[in-house]
Amino acid sequence: MPGQSKTLENLFLENLKDIYYAEKKILVALPKMAKAVNSDQLRAAFEQHVEETKGQVDRLLQVFKMLKQPAKGKTCPAILGLVEEGEEVMEDFEDSSALDAGLLSGAQAVEHYEMARYGTLIAWAQQLNMPEAAKLLQQTLDEEKKTDATLSKLAGGVINQKAA
Amino acid sequence: MPGQSKTLENLFLENLKDIYYAEKKILVALPKMAKAVNSDQLRAAFEQHVEETKGQVDRLLQVFKMLKQPAKGKTCPAILGLVEEGEEVMEDFEDSSALDAGLLSGAQAVEHYEMARYGTLIAWAQQLNMPEAAKLLQQTLDEEKKTDATLSKLAGGVINQKAA
Repeated sequence: MPGQSKTLENLFLENLKDIYYAEKKILVALPKMAKAVNSDQLRAAFEQHVEETKGQVDRLLQVFKMLKQPAKGKTCPAILGLVEEGEEVMEDFEDSSALDAGLLSGAQAVEHYEMARYGTLIAWAQQLNMPEAAKLLQQTLDEEKKTDATLSKLAGGVINQKAA
Repeated sequence: MPGQSKTLENLFLENLKDIYYAEKKILVALPKMAKAVNSDQLRAAFEQHVEETKGQVDRLLQVFKMLKQPAKGKTCPAILGLVEEGEEVMEDFEDSSALDAGLLSGAQAVEHYEMARYGTLIAWAQQLNMPEAAKLLQQTLDEEKKTDATLSKLAGGVINQKAA
């Protein structure tokens, strides 16, 4: 039988710290990616998402406050891996017409990581009877999904044709 | 102006190697997760996904063949990070009633990583005029989406209630 040493609230807090750390890493990585791409449309999408990400960090700060916990990040190996893959693409495809396709793909992998984490956090917030937190996190999830859809649209169009 | 040193086909191959490496890591990680969980339903879902993953690896081998390239993995830092996060949960929540919720969440993060990568590979396969490869990869993407939906259903029900 499992013990009661750690609860769902602990798990929620751990994952909140994980995504808080991840969002701050994304705030550093995205402007570099925006600088590297050739497509103006893709650059605009990345730049817009930088602004959105700042708002998402603010929402996380509000959730930490609701939990009466200090806002603290926790090293998130997944985002470090995702950022590393993006950096590899920038290096290996620096002079390639496929650079934009590669960076777009990397950004979508990051979006999907966030979508998974926020989806989980929302389910747990509801379980923990924190409807206000769930609502805030849902706003972020909706933004992530919208960003992913925007990127898919760009991927299907100009960029891949150019790269091919 | 970007050069022509590397093409979309190179990018496709690099990402194929990335997901091939990732699938093989998942084949090692999933049985450990299945062994660790308390919920029989969740264990069954993990075990079923092990079997599916074997089929997904086979499909990747077929796509390597279509490209006339040897099947070779390429270190994928993202999956290493995701697996590491799962291991952290197993360690930190070993005796906790929230263990299952944490492992389920980790599995969903892995599913989302795969969904992002397969989505990209399908778009590129279509661009590269490889409809057969796109079809195979689409079969895998459909399976990943189904697995994610199954996990969401489990998350909304038994597991989180127990953990709360």
